[in-house]
Amino acid sequence: MAKLIAYEEAPPEVRAVFDDIKASRGVPDVNNFWKALAVHPPTLKRVWEQLKEVMAPGALDPLTKELIYLAVSIAHGCEYCIASHTRSARAKGMSDAMYGELLAVVATAAETNRLAQALRVPVDPQFDR
Amino acid sequence: MAKLIAYEEAPPEVRAVFDDIKASRGVPDVNNFWKALAVHPPTLKRVWEQLKEVMAPGALDPLTKELIYLAVSIAHGCEYCIASHTRSARAKGMSDAMYGELLAVVATAAETNRLAQALRVPVDPQFDR
Amino acid sequence: MAKLIAYEEAPPEVRAVFDDIKASRGVPDVNNFWKALAVHPPTLKRVWEQLKEVMAPGALDPLTKELIYLAVSIAHGCEYCIASHTRSARAKGMSDAMYGELLAVVATAAETNRLAQALRVPVDPQFDR
Amino acid sequence: MAKLIAYEEAPPEVRAVFDDIKASRGVPDVNNFWKALAVHPPTLKRVWEQLKEVMAPGALDPLTKELIYLAVSIAHGCEYCIASHTRSARAKGMSDAMYGELLAVVATAAETNRLAQALRVPVDPQFDR
Amino acid sequence: MAKLIAYEEAPPEVRAVFDDIKASRGVPDVNNFWKALAVHPPTLKRVWEQLKEVMAPGALDPLTKELIYLAVSIAHGCEYCIASHTRSARAKGMSDAMYGELLAVVATAAETNRLAQALRVPVDPQFDR
Amino acid sequence: MAKLIAYEEAPPEVRAVFDDIKASRGVPDVNNFWKALAVHPPTLKRVWEQLKEVMAPGALDPLTKELIYLAVSIAHGCEYCIASHTRSARAKGMSDAMYGELLAVVATAAETNRLAQALRVPVDPQFDR
Repeated sequence: MAKLIAYEEAPPEVRAVFDDIKASRGVPDVNNFWKALAVHPPTLKRVWEQLKEVMAPGALDPLTKELIYLAVSIAHGCEYCIASHTRSARAKGMSDAMYGELLAVVATAAETNRLAQALRVPVDPQFDR
Repeated sequence: MAKLIAYEEAPPEVRAVFDDIKASRGVPDVNNFWKALAVHPPTLKRVWEQLKEVMAPGALDPLTKELIYLAVSIAHGCEYCIASHTRSARAKGMSDAMYGELLAVVATAAETNRLAQALRVPVDPQFDR
Repeated sequence: MAKLIAYEEAPPEVRAVFDDIKASRGVPDVNNFWKALAVHPPTLKRVWEQLKEVMAPGALDPLTKELIYLAVSIAHGCEYCIASHTRSARAKGMSDAMYGELLAVVATAAETNRLAQALRVPVDPQFDR
Repeated sequence: MAKLIAYEEAPPEVRAVFDDIKASRGVPDVNNFWKALAVHPPTLKRVWEQLKEVMAPGALDPLTKELIYLAVSIAHGCEYCIASHTRSARAKGMSDAMYGELLAVVATAAETNRLAQALRVPVDPQFDR
Repeated sequence: MAKLIAYEEAPPEVRAVFDDIKASRGVPDVNNFWKALAVHPPTLKRVWEQLKEVMAPGALDPLTKELIYLAVSIAHGCEYCIASHTRSARAKGMSDAMYGELLAVVATAAETNRLAQALRVPVDPQFDR
Repeated sequence: MAKLIAYEEAPPEVRAVFDDIKASRGVPDVNNFWKALAVHPPTLKRVWEQLKEVMAPGALDPLTKELIYLAVSIAHGCEYCIASHTRSARAKGMSDAMYGELLAVVATAAETNRLAQALRVPVDPQFDR
C-alpha cells in the first residue's frame, strides 16, 4: 500500500497543492490519491495543474469528461480510479440509467476491439478521408 | 489480414445482416469489420444486434456513446477501432475542439491510472458509500 | 521495423538455434520472429528452448495450447503474434467452426472482464474453497 | 465495491434472469457477478443470453472454451474473472497438470507477445496465404 | 492516419512549440508525433513542457529514463512510441548489449506479471514494511 | 487466492528450487510468488532459472534492470509485481528521488503512448534507418 502523507506532516510545497485542491473542490480533505502522490512533490503539483486544466468545462461538459475518464480507467483495469471516477461521475449527475448505458458501451467496445484485432481488419480507406 | 467476405459471395444469413446494417445506417456497403466478422455468421449477427441496441439513443446521447467507445478503443490500442470510431464520432457531431479535449482527457486518465496503480493507493471509504 | 538477421550473416550460436527450429518443425527457413530475436542470441536461445518445452504435447494437446496462445495474443493486441498463431492453429487442425467459436469466447471474455472490473465485484467465497 | 442485488429485492426482469441462471446451472444462488450486473437489467439479460450461447458445446468442447476464457481473463488482469473461471474450469475437468500447462502457455505467450511488439517484427507473407 | 500539421501551415502557438522543440533538441524539424498532436494546441504545449521537465537529467540519468520509457511503450503495445524511443535510447547511448538485456527484462516481467495475476498471489507482508 | 505451498509440504524438486532461491538471495524463506508457482514445478524451475540469468549484472546494472521490471509491472497493472519489485528496487538502491522520477516517466509514457495510438501517428522514416 502507498504511504499516505497527511497534511500535518507534509512539506510546504505539498500543503500548497493540498490547499488548492481543497479550495477548488470545496472539500475538507484530499483523497488518498493525492496523499500518495505527495511522495514526489513535482509530480503532485504537475498532475494537479493538468487535471484542473483538462477537466474544466470546455467544448465537452464536465460530466461527459468524467464518463470518458471512467471508461479509460475501466479499460486499464485501475481499481482505485474506477472507484474514484464512478463517484465523481455520480456527483456530476450520472444517473443509474446513464451508468448502465456506460457499462454497456464500454463492454461492447471491449468485445469489438478484440474482434477487430483478432481478425486484423484493414482500415477502410474512407476512414482517412 | 482478415479475409473480407463480399456481399456477392456471402451466404443468406450473412446477407441478411449486411442488408440490415446498410438499411439502418443508410450506406451503400458495410465496413470491413463486418466483412471480416462474416467468417462466423452467429457472431456477426449477435454483435450487430448488440451494437444496434447498445448504441441507440437512451439516457446518453449517441455522440456521448461514441466518445466513450473511442476512449475505450484508444486504451485497448485497437487501431481499426480508433479509425472507425473517430470517423463515427465526427459524423455524429464531434468538433475539432471536442476531439482535442477527448484526447486530453484520455491521456490524463492514462497517466493517473498508472500512477494510482504504481502507488497501490487504497480506495477511500467514502467512495463506497 | 526489426532488423532481420538471415542465416548467412548469423553468428554460430544463432545458426545453431535456427538449425534446431528448422529441424524440429521441418521447415526450410525460420519465421521473421526468430530472425528479429537474433539481435540478442541469449534471448533467442532461451525463448526457443522454452517454447519447445511449453508447447510440447502434455496434459493439454498441441491444438488446445495453440488456441490458448492465440487468445492471449489477441488480448495483448500483438498483431504479429495473432497472425503467426492463427496460422499455427490452422496447421494443427483448427477448423473454421473452431476459429469462429474461439473468436466468440475471446470477445465475450473481453466484455465480461471489463464489466467485472467496472463493477468491482467482490470474489465469491466459494471460488477460493 | 459493487452493490450486490439479492433475489429478494430484485425487480421481476432481474429475477427472471436469476431463475434461468440457477436452473441452467443447477445452483441455489447466482454468483456475485450477476448480482452486481443487475444494476442494469438490459445488460444483465443480454450478457447472460450471450454467455449461454457462446459457452455451449460446439466445435470446441466446454472445457476448452473455459481454458480460453481463463487465458483472456489473465491477460486482461481481471481478478474476479480469474477466480471465477479458474473455478469453472476445475468444475469442467481441468486437472492440476492441465492448469500448470495453461499457466506455462499463457506466460510464454505474454513473453513472446511483448518481444514481437518490441522488435516490430513484420508479418511473414506466408501467414496471410 | 493522423493529419500532420507542417510548420508552414501551423498557427503561431503551434510554431512557438515547434521552435522550442527544434532548439532544445538541435534538430531541423519535429517528429510526426508533434505534427499530429498540433491538432490540439493546448495539449501540444502541455505535453511538450511535461516531457522537457520529466526527461531532464535528475536522480536518474537520461538514458535510464529512456529505457523506462521504452519498457512502458512495449507493455502498452504502442508501435510509434516503441520506434521513437528505441531511436532515442540509441541516441543516448544504448548499446546492442543493453538493448538485448532490456528486451530480456521486459519479456521476463511480462511473463511473471501474468503468472502472479493468474495465481492471485497475496502480497507478502514484508513488502509493505 | 493462490494456494501457497510451504517448504515442509513441498516435493523434492520444489524444495531444490526453494533452496537455490534462499541461497542465492541470502533469505530465510521464499516470497509468496514462488510458493504459489510451486503448483507447477516445471514452470517454477524454468522461471527461477530465467530470472537468475536475466537479472544478473550485465551491460545493464541490477538497479536499472529492477527499474525496467517495475515499469513494466505498472503498465500491466500487476499489483503483486508492483509491490514486490518496488521493494527489490529499494533494496538495490532506489532513492526517494529516483522513485519519484520513475513514477513521472512511467506516467508520461502512458500519456504519450495513448496519444500516439489515438492519433495513429505514422512512424518517421528516420526511426528505421
